[in-house]
Amino acid sequence: MVLVATRNPLNLGAAARAMSNFGFSRLRVVAPYEAAYREARSAVGASELLANAEEYASVAEAVADCTLVVGTTAARNRELAHRLLQLEEGAGLIRQERRAGRVALLFGSEKRGLSNRDLSHCHWLLRLPTREQHPSMNLGQAVAVALYEVARHPDASLPQAAQARRLLVKLAAAGEIERLTSTLLETLRASGYANSETAAAEEKVRRLIHRLQLDATDAETLLGMLRQILWKLRRER
Amino acid sequence: MVLVATRNPLNLGAAARAMSNFGFSRLRVVAPYEAAYREARSAVGASELLANAEEYASVAEAVADCTLVVGTTAARNRELAHRLLQLEEGAGLIRQERRAGRVALLFGSEKRGLSNRDLSHCHWLLRLPTREQHPSMNLGQAVAVALYEVARHPDASLPQAAQARRLLVKLAAAGEIERLTSTLLETLRASGYANSETAAAEEKVRRLIHRLQLDATDAETLLGMLRQILWKLRRER
Repeated sequence: MVLVATRNPLNLGAAARAMSNFGFSRLRVVAPYEAAYREARSAVGASELLANAEEYASVAEAVADCTLVVGTTAARNRELAHRLLQLEEGAGLIRQERRAGRVALLFGSEKRGLSNRDLSHCHWLLRLPTREQHPSMNLGQAVAVALYEVARHPDASLPQAAQARRLLVKLAAAGEIERLTSTLLETLRASGYANSETAAAEEKVRRLIHRLQLDATDAETLLGMLRQILWKLRRER
Repeated sequence: MVLVATRNPLNLGAAARAMSNFGFSRLRVVAPYEAAYREARSAVGASELLANAEEYASVAEAVADCTLVVGTTAARNRELAHRLLQLEEGAGLIRQERRAGRVALLFGSEKRGLSNRDLSHCHWLLRLPTREQHPSMNLGQAVAVALYEVARHPDASLPQAAQARRLLVKLAAAGEIERLTSTLLETLRASGYANSETAAAEEKVRRLIHRLQLDATDAETLLGMLRQILWKLRRER
């Protein structure tokens, strides 16, 4: 559970409580709005979990050791750079991935949700099935609903081995994906690829790499290839 | 939705917000602890729903016109005067009953839950599936989780939906994959990547590209990147 740029400490406490209710223990906090959140009284029965929250300066650092990074949204169709899964379907995939790897579930700030930059770290997005006329949930409630569904008994609704092969392989950790992204960007810049200097280009490349859902071995192979190409490009100069 | 003896007006507001998120509109309040709850700021986007709450002095009056009365609890086995249904199972029965009649879903106070007297009005109890070591949920979160499950689309667990969406993505044609494969190979050779000259290497790269299951747009983007890199490598020579 990764809470990004949360404004209200009470929501951090409520999220911690829901985590404890449904059996989740690792809370990570990225750039919280208020520094003193660890004693939020709303973490009833989960004060230790909240006190042990790990704090990070960026999403990249917070998800570096995760093999699946999922963003949450109430939006029906944000620019569709990402695959958008309904909560029920996505929760099944999260359950499966948790058996082998580590999953990061990201929630954005109360006001704005996750930024496009935050989203560029995600493999796909999870949509909470709220009403079109009133999609925006309270953060603590959204966390509770999402975790309830992830914690649901596995037999309740196994999404048909959606990509059965994915279940058998060890997906690349987000840190590896990030190295691949930055190396590809450097290579593109060194080759004079159009529009490779901007932040938008960086996000575009990161999303592309995430969509590939690389397993660990393929990610390593591709990184090796890119490094060789980059080395050659630089030596030629 | 009937909230009995609620202490904190913020929880009433949060409950109203969750009702609105999931498409429920009639809120009934029995003997609230604080008289002034109708303006609770936590009812973001649901202030009208909260302002229109119907207030009753007793549970009996609040549920008088309902054909099914369901109490909620986090307890695993309260004195078993009542049948206790898991949320998922109970929600299905509530959905069915709502087609013909009116259902009251009762939530007790933050401190004590529903009293035995309150429970005596209930046909059966609904249990939220929290962890045995920490069963007690925040009221607003409990309401959100329960309503999420009741609002769930009866056919929601159809895993085919997942597949269907994936089929809508236009995968790259084999010819495109082949162009990508050969361009990557040329680039690797131009950069002096080890073992890029053999037939085995060619197969390895082709298999890798196929595993990515690229859609048409991503394949085109990657091909454009590779062509630029290859052009640069050759020009430098």
